[in-house]
Amino acid sequence: PADRERTEPEVGVATGLAWTEFGGELLSIEVSITPGKGQVVMTGKLGDVMKESVQAAMSYVRTRSKHLGLKTNFYMTQDVHVHIPEGAIPKDGPSAGITVATALVSALTGNAVRKDICMTGEITLTGKVLPIGGLKEKALAAHRVKIDNVIIPKENEKDLPDIPASIRRKLNFISVENMDEVLELSFEKKRKSKSKRTQKTTTKKKTAKSRSRKTPTRKHPSVAHLN
Amino acid sequence: PADRERTEPEVGVATGLAWTEFGGELLSIEVSITPGKGQVVMTGKLGDVMKESVQAAMSYVRTRSKHLGLKTNFYMTQDVHVHIPEGAIPKDGPSAGITVATALVSALTGNAVRKDICMTGEITLTGKVLPIGGLKEKALAAHRVKIDNVIIPKENEKDLPDIPASIRRKLNFISVENMDEVLELSFEKKRKSKSKRTQKTTTKKKTAKSRSRKTPTRKHPSVAHLN
Amino acid sequence: PADRERTEPEVGVATGLAWTEFGGELLSIEVSITPGKGQVVMTGKLGDVMKESVQAAMSYVRTRSKHLGLKTNFYMTQDVHVHIPEGAIPKDGPSAGITVATALVSALTGNAVRKDICMTGEITLTGKVLPIGGLKEKALAAHRVKIDNVIIPKENEKDLPDIPASIRRKLNFISVENMDEVLELSFEKKRKSKSKRTQKTTTKKKTAKSRSRKTPTRKHPSVAHLN
Amino acid sequence: PADRERTEPEVGVATGLAWTEFGGELLSIEVSITPGKGQVVMTGKLGDVMKESVQAAMSYVRTRSKHLGLKTNFYMTQDVHVHIPEGAIPKDGPSAGITVATALVSALTGNAVRKDICMTGEITLTGKVLPIGGLKEKALAAHRVKIDNVIIPKENEKDLPDIPASIRRKLNFISVENMDEVLELSFEKKRKSKSKRTQKTTTKKKTAKSRSRKTPTRKHPSVAHLN
Amino acid sequence: PADRERTEPEVGVATGLAWTEFGGELLSIEVSITPGKGQVVMTGKLGDVMKESVQAAMSYVRTRSKHLGLKTNFYMTQDVHVHIPEGAIPKDGPSAGITVATALVSALTGNAVRKDICMTGEITLTGKVLPIGGLKEKALAAHRVKIDNVIIPKENEKDLPDIPASIRRKLNFISVENMDEVLELSFEKKRKSKSKRTQKTTTKKKTAKSRSRKTPTRKHPSVAHLN
Amino acid sequence: PADRERTEPEVGVATGLAWTEFGGELLSIEVSITPGKGQVVMTGKLGDVMKESVQAAMSYVRTRSKHLGLKTNFYMTQDVHVHIPEGAIPKDGPSAGITVATALVSALTGNAVRKDICMTGEITLTGKVLPIGGLKEKALAAHRVKIDNVIIPKENEKDLPDIPASIRRKLNFISVENMDEVLELSFEKKRKSKSKRTQKTTTKKKTAKSRSRKTPTRKHPSVAHLN
Ligand SMILES: [Ca+2]
Ligand SMILES: [Ca+2]
Ligand SMILES: [Ca+2]
Ligand SMILES: [Ca+2]
Ligand SMILES: [Ca+2]
Ligand SMILES: [Ca+2]
Ligand SMILES: [Ca+2]
Ligand SMILES: [Ca+2]
Ligand SMILES: [Ca+2]
Ligand SMILES: [Ca+2]
Ligand SMILES: [Ca+2]
Ligand SMILES: [Ca+2]
Repeated sequence: PADRERTEPEVGVATGLAWTEFGGELLSIEVSITPGKGQVVMTGKLGDVMKESVQAAMSYVRTRSKHLGLKTNFYMTQDVHVHIPEGAIPKDGPSAGITVATALVSALTGNAVRKDICMTGEITLTGKVLPIGGLKEKALAAHRVKIDNVIIPKENEKDLPDIPASIRRKLNFISVENMDEVLELSFEKKRKSKSKRTQKTTTKKKTAKSRSRKTPTRKHPSVAHLN
Repeated sequence: PADRERTEPEVGVATGLAWTEFGGELLSIEVSITPGKGQVVMTGKLGDVMKESVQAAMSYVRTRSKHLGLKTNFYMTQDVHVHIPEGAIPKDGPSAGITVATALVSALTGNAVRKDICMTGEITLTGKVLPIGGLKEKALAAHRVKIDNVIIPKENEKDLPDIPASIRRKLNFISVENMDEVLELSFEKKRKSKSKRTQKTTTKKKTAKSRSRKTPTRKHPSVAHLN
Repeated sequence: PADRERTEPEVGVATGLAWTEFGGELLSIEVSITPGKGQVVMTGKLGDVMKESVQAAMSYVRTRSKHLGLKTNFYMTQDVHVHIPEGAIPKDGPSAGITVATALVSALTGNAVRKDICMTGEITLTGKVLPIGGLKEKALAAHRVKIDNVIIPKENEKDLPDIPASIRRKLNFISVENMDEVLELSFEKKRKSKSKRTQKTTTKKKTAKSRSRKTPTRKHPSVAHLN
Repeated sequence: PADRERTEPEVGVATGLAWTEFGGELLSIEVSITPGKGQVVMTGKLGDVMKESVQAAMSYVRTRSKHLGLKTNFYMTQDVHVHIPEGAIPKDGPSAGITVATALVSALTGNAVRKDICMTGEITLTGKVLPIGGLKEKALAAHRVKIDNVIIPKENEKDLPDIPASIRRKLNFISVENMDEVLELSFEKKRKSKSKRTQKTTTKKKTAKSRSRKTPTRKHPSVAHLN
Repeated sequence: PADRERTEPEVGVATGLAWTEFGGELLSIEVSITPGKGQVVMTGKLGDVMKESVQAAMSYVRTRSKHLGLKTNFYMTQDVHVHIPEGAIPKDGPSAGITVATALVSALTGNAVRKDICMTGEITLTGKVLPIGGLKEKALAAHRVKIDNVIIPKENEKDLPDIPASIRRKLNFISVENMDEVLELSFEKKRKSKSKRTQKTTTKKKTAKSRSRKTPTRKHPSVAHLN
Repeated sequence: PADRERTEPEVGVATGLAWTEFGGELLSIEVSITPGKGQVVMTGKLGDVMKESVQAAMSYVRTRSKHLGLKTNFYMTQDVHVHIPEGAIPKDGPSAGITVATALVSALTGNAVRKDICMTGEITLTGKVLPIGGLKEKALAAHRVKIDNVIIPKENEKDLPDIPASIRRKLNFISVENMDEVLELSFEKKRKSKSKRTQKTTTKKKTAKSRSRKTPTRKHPSVAHLN
């Protein structure tokens, strides 16, 4: 199934990370936008908390519509469907929030999400990125499917040392505080990048070595290289 | 009851495959379209997961409306009813997704679905076809009612060897990755076929013989002939 | 109470047959149509399966509106109420489907349903008539209230031998495959009958002889007279 | 509390009879009609069966609107509230159907219901009056509050002998088959009465004496005088 | 908390009396009216019976809109919010009915409710005031917060002797049969009072002394002075 | 996580105080307003009581719209989303009422809430501030994140002595009776302050003396400085 995760960039699809009792999992989040009356449909056996995090992501995007170049009332003349395959597996929790928002922005702008990036983080209405659980398992899953760039909440930097050094060394963790940073990181550079607010955060540990040489030179405020 | 499954081509009806604890079953999926206000009704004692897969199929068709030659806002001026007889038997799971989408397209375009074909596969919003369970039982059911052509998800090719060779030999498995392929396969050739993307996949096993001579020469990207 | 079942023909009322743990029962199904906004109300303590079968019957009638001489969008400018007395008794199952459709057509066309006919059968969206359970008990109920003509699904012909010969002899079983046949049979002949598609089915048993000579010359594709 | 039941005629209020485990009870059924959008509100801790019987009563009145001199679409421009005090006591069952219909017609026509009459009976969409349970207890309740005229379903005539002779003697039972009869009986004679369809049914028993001298000379098809 | 109950007259607020297992309680009922589409919101952890009694109060006010000087369709162009603090305490039962109606009329007319009056009584659609339970505890609560005038249902006069004489002596019980009387009593005299229908009911008991000297000279049909 | 609470002033965000079984917690309440049809969405795993308190806060703001300089029908042309992170943690109770109202007013007026202030209190429709529970734990939480100004209900002044003196000494408790006072206190002084209604309340313990001389000259009716 991992093969499904590594195809070319797609519009309306972003890759999240989920924790399950059997370990971490990649979660493809799909959004379709069609002309409509403003209905929001959520499918994929989503629990109440996840449904609410979709609503939070939606409201964030509504609030930021002007900034994102969207028509101010896009949500009144279009229907939004957020689906998370595989449909028989129950999913819950707030940690897919930033992934949903990214897929939403992708579907609304027509810009494809980078395929070499995955992410996990709770979103708030104002676009803050809150910490999540299960970072270690999620990192192992990202490593398993060879998606090297992993966006994580800044408050989760403290959990990076729990990840086995051999894995940590091969992944590029990018920590963020705000949804705007996530969007800066997630899309291919179609618009002129202004390279602002870039900032690196290095978390060391025992035998850790700097992996900063592997860090791409793209803009993102906080980068955690762990070894 | 099997006799019900083998009549002439019908508009708005497609044949799926279900797994039950008593074995595989054929599932006739019916769709009716009438002028309306965009209501979607689902009946046949469908569980939540199946209802969501109907929603996913619907959104896929909405997204592909232009490609399918449908009016862009067909879903706002018509009501859709998806029904799966027999009404007293509970049904659930995502594996009827591609069948629902096929029946929907049939009802919306007025093109009848081929009667010598049945199918099983989960659909995603973007039209990916995801793997299903119970392939062996489903294959036995298809064989029982003599519907020789069976569309399956590409990821289920690995399960074909589990099917008894005597059955496998008589069935024509066609594996797909994308809903567009399913639609190419499911309808009588009314439109000019461009025979593109055809591809055959042969899975061999012990005493298997090539059954490729029975394979129709129609286009389909992946074909699994098993003996 | 049986007396209630045998009055003059009524518009919007058809007689079904139900199975209960105390034996068969006649079920009067009432439909009223009044100007409205397209609301469908169902009452009579109907279970979910029965409610869905009302929806299937409704969609069948919508699909066939032109054929039935109804205004194409009758369901948008009228409210439909389907009621099954007695209101305190729970009712469920799909076998009233064809009776509901018949009562609906009666209410919508203003044609009264024949009072000497009762029926049982599941309906699908496309008007197929699927088999039901409890045929023996239902037949006994029809006999008890002296409604001699009993429409049954063709697939239930195989159950006719279970009915005591003394009862079978006095009833006229008419087996059907399609809702169109039910409608042909259920109304007084107001329109010119074209006597098309008549077909006889003979069910044998032990000492059974061909009874085809006893078949009335009315139009209906399959008639099973059992003794 | 019985005193509440015996005031002057009121518009929109009719008196029903309920069975409880502590014996029969009078049930005041109130209906208010105000300009609106066609909403129907039901209060008084009504169970599902009773709510459905309110819907049946409403549909009966809709169907009969022309006959009753109501505007055909009264239910689209007015809101209807059906309330049964006392609000803390749960109520259920279909036997208040004819009382609800009577109160509805009263509220809609502005004609007060006679205060010397109470009633019990299930209503169907087509206005049939079906039998009810607990006739004996209901009769005792009517007697207790000195409402002498009691409308009952014709099929309940068979239960009249169960009522103690001393009570039966003092009550005037009027049995009906159809809601139209109930309406003829329930209102003060504002319109010219045509005295049609009058019919008396006499049920005798042991020491019964004729009470027909107490029967009002109004039209009603079936009258049961019991002694 | 009792201090909250004794401020100056307020628009849209009326004081009811509740029974709890810890004794009587005062219940402040707040109503706000704002331009809207006719929505009715009820909050304060209200049980179903209390919600229905709010609906009954609302319909009473709708029916009496002309008499109360309200715009006939006020409920279609305004939203109504009925709230009963304290929000964490569950509340149920029909006995706040007349209090809700009073607060509603206050909010709709802009007339403040008298602060020296509290009340308890079920309301019906037609404005009848039905008896309530827990009168003794409610009276003790009124006495505790020094609200001397207590409106009670006429049918509860029989319960007055249960109240300790020392309390009874200090309270002015005003018994009513109809909501119109409640409204006459609850507001400051802005309109000319016609002093009609005044009537006093005296319930005596052992050592009771007349307290009629404390009774205000306002109009109210039934006054019970108990000692 | 405490760090999240102390950033610069934000529009649409206010800081409440919650009681949990593990102690007090700060609760960031976020409100977003976007053009819409008047929908109110509440997320953050809110219990029924908290949802109702959001409704009460909303109605309070609607009622006060003119006073607050808002368009009278702002709630009909805008959608409101109230979200309380962290989305996976259940939240309930009425004590966030004044915080929700403050965040609402902030979002609607575009004025940022002061970041050095937090609050707790139930709101009623008419803007009264009712007492809450867990004041001690909430005060400890405010102290922990160094938000020194704590708005509390006046009726909770009696609970201040329960807070350890060392904490009380460092916090500035401001007690209020009315939501208008909360709004006066919560925003940066953009409008000219009229310094009206200032009043000081000092709550001492053990050896307490009159403290009215210690009240700062800011406007708020009751201020409790505790040592
Ligand atoms: Ca998986
Ligand atoms: Ca995730
Ligand atoms: Ca079957
Ligand atoms: Ca299937
Ligand atoms: Ca029966
Ligand atoms: Ca039936
Ligand atoms: Ca009673
Ligand atoms: Ca009754
Ligand atoms: Ca209290
Ligand atoms: Ca009360
Ligand atoms: Ca926290
Ligand atoms: Ca709080």
